[in-house]
Amino acid sequence: MATKKTATKKKAAAKPMNAFYAQSGGVTAVINASACGVIETARKNKTKIGKVYAGRNGIIGALTEDLIDTSKETTAGIKALRHTPSGAFGSCRFKLKSLEANAREYERLIEVFKAHNIGYFFYNGGGDSADTCFKVSQLSEKMGYPIQAIHVPKTVDNDLPITDNCPGFGSVAKYIAVSTREASFDVASMSKTSTKVFIVEVMGRHAGWIAAAGGLASTEDTPIPIVILFPEVEFDEKKFLAKVDAMVKKHGYCTVVVSEGVHYKNGKFLAESGLKDNFGHAQLGGAATVISGMVQNGLGLKNHWAVADYLQRAARHIASKTDVDMAYAMGKAAVNFALKGHNSIMPTVDRISNKPFKWKVGMADLSKVANVEKMMPKNFITKDGYGITKKCREYLEPLIKGEDYPPYKNGMPKYVRMKGVAVKKKLKKFDL
Amino acid sequence: MATKKTATKKKAAAKPMNAFYAQSGGVTAVINASACGVIETARKNKTKIGKVYAGRNGIIGALTEDLIDTSKETTAGIKALRHTPSGAFGSCRFKLKSLEANAREYERLIEVFKAHNIGYFFYNGGGDSADTCFKVSQLSEKMGYPIQAIHVPKTVDNDLPITDNCPGFGSVAKYIAVSTREASFDVASMSKTSTKVFIVEVMGRHAGWIAAAGGLASTEDTPIPIVILFPEVEFDEKKFLAKVDAMVKKHGYCTVVVSEGVHYKNGKFLAESGLKDNFGHAQLGGAATVISGMVQNGLGLKNHWAVADYLQRAARHIASKTDVDMAYAMGKAAVNFALKGHNSIMPTVDRISNKPFKWKVGMADLSKVANVEKMMPKNFITKDGYGITKKCREYLEPLIKGEDYPPYKNGMPKYVRMKGVAVKKKLKKFDL
Repeated sequence: MATKKTATKKKAAAKPMNAFYAQSGGVTAVINASACGVIETARKNKTKIGKVYAGRNGIIGALTEDLIDTSKETTAGIKALRHTPSGAFGSCRFKLKSLEANAREYERLIEVFKAHNIGYFFYNGGGDSADTCFKVSQLSEKMGYPIQAIHVPKTVDNDLPITDNCPGFGSVAKYIAVSTREASFDVASMSKTSTKVFIVEVMGRHAGWIAAAGGLASTEDTPIPIVILFPEVEFDEKKFLAKVDAMVKKHGYCTVVVSEGVHYKNGKFLAESGLKDNFGHAQLGGAATVISGMVQNGLGLKNHWAVADYLQRAARHIASKTDVDMAYAMGKAAVNFALKGHNSIMPTVDRISNKPFKWKVGMADLSKVANVEKMMPKNFITKDGYGITKKCREYLEPLIKGEDYPPYKNGMPKYVRMKGVAVKKKLKKFDL
Repeated sequence: MATKKTATKKKAAAKPMNAFYAQSGGVTAVINASACGVIETARKNKTKIGKVYAGRNGIIGALTEDLIDTSKETTAGIKALRHTPSGAFGSCRFKLKSLEANAREYERLIEVFKAHNIGYFFYNGGGDSADTCFKVSQLSEKMGYPIQAIHVPKTVDNDLPITDNCPGFGSVAKYIAVSTREASFDVASMSKTSTKVFIVEVMGRHAGWIAAAGGLASTEDTPIPIVILFPEVEFDEKKFLAKVDAMVKKHGYCTVVVSEGVHYKNGKFLAESGLKDNFGHAQLGGAATVISGMVQNGLGLKNHWAVADYLQRAARHIASKTDVDMAYAMGKAAVNFALKGHNSIMPTVDRISNKPFKWKVGMADLSKVANVEKMMPKNFITKDGYGITKKCREYLEPLIKGEDYPPYKNGMPKYVRMKGVAVKKKLKKFDL
């Protein structure tokens, strides 16, 4: 366990230092639950942490001195973050370069931190964001500014290392498992004279965790013929069509869960759009239409396809209670670790047992988290490459357990929006 | 009100006649709730209705004498239909030709009805199915076989006439409204540096009811910039892009809800796949990708797109309680109308008032239902063609009210499957 403690003497002084909190990268159904955990825990420790300033649109808010004073938000408003999807303070796709390559940005961060008496940096994101957080955590050593940077794990992709899972994943997994079961019931009803194959495309650029969740739709009680296409398994059209054909012949229908990241042996994605996001990743989408064409043309089977896209990661209405609890706990732990003087770490979910499911909060060294992508273990995918193993199921099942419905008004979920009151600027404008 | 009563003397005889029930066309999140209403009500009237035989895969089950004996299903199993999406007995896309064009099929139906002592015909479907049901209802007059045919309304498209709405629609409307709100929160979070437009494609071949439901995502409490593309409004690329551009300039992001049935002035759908279903309708899908390309190429705005497809109509996990109640009530009313001697009718939802929302069961003459498609009234669409009016909102809002969650086990909804015990065949094989 990494437990780098920085000097905390300064914080014993009269006025407690403020905290900076920001959301980064793709948002999730529960990232605001982590925000809720951070802010509520900070509020309980007012003698040690002053105000929580949230970056408007992530780290960009810090660089441009666009800070939201969360102390202006009501207790009820902050509480409601727990059941509100998306990033309530705005997120961004913006990766800091290395200190050597862009000292200007780091100097600016220190300038803003100093101006607003910020001693804590809570960054809520995935792998790329962990890298940013890690770089900020080095500011104490490299640039002499005492900051404690703590990363709050979040990503639907579930690809952060060390932690058992990433908050955000459990809810998208539940959404995909539930939706796959529901649509499979639908196609089964239609299969006699109409649609025989249903295809759903899910997120997951490199790691097949979300696709694997599609496998949870089928249980001993409720078996469903499902073919999963993982990014970890090279796509082979002939073998795939043979598998679908066999499934339809046996069961009358089947469901295909295809990851957006599925690719051929040569590395080419099934559906490359040519667009790239600001991190330089190819923006995917459209694998389902490619699969649909193959099933139609190769097997002559009528099929329907869906692309869940943002619907899957925003679906707070069907969030996993386990996931919500973990997201909150990670935010809370981040603050508690900070109060104990830690820097350059990330709270983690440590699984103790599967049956009954037990877990506790752990801690990981950020240098071991940043830029490391956790793939599905080989023994989580069945030998034929199209399903999940018992081991995988044992891992996934606890993560989707429990429902945690938001409140409703007139048939619609009541999601909160922040007032977003800006902290008065003290510095000159900074051009990004 | 149509109240064609057929001679019911025969039913006073010793052994009550059996009922035939079948599901037809695209299934919904609540069609099984109607099945539940039919079967539970029939079970309460055992002295008047014998057994309920369900057609395996709709009318095909009747033609091929493939009947499911629902008396073999447990009370709990039938009760669980109320919270199970899809068509538990199997549906089909199969339209009977006219009596003149295909007497053979009608003769076969009578043969099967006679062999199994069937005097009631409950057909659960949309417009095409209402036509089939209407044809069957004429068998008494035209072919001398005493059958009471009653149509149970169902369609996510909400395009049946006379009834205030169609069970199945309220739940898909709720799904689209909730999903649109959630994804809009997501894109709002991302819009500073990344995605600025989110596009979701929804069902609705000719009528924009489902697309209209996307407008419910935005309320006074929670305003959201939404552009709706209705099939009722001819698509104009230039005007559409100007609208999106203005929305993004004003709000920083926007959400586009596009109906699969959106078409150009010349009638061509935005995304025609060239495939046709068994009813001869063009099979659509892919309008979202077309819109995505326009927004990217025409405005240079990064966007994400989703196609909900079956997910929307199978989403029992977020069904509208109002819709579930109505679906059940339609099934129950069908049986009660039959017991009163009616033929060739369809129970309807009659709206009494909006605030408070009140409705009662009514009745429509099938001849006035079959093959009539109810479009959105003009005054439901805003003048610019991209939004819903107050009138539309007042109509839609009550239909998505209330949640009716299914039970869960290990994080997954517990949906029931029928045993599906076949009734012993008495007749020779029939080739479709």
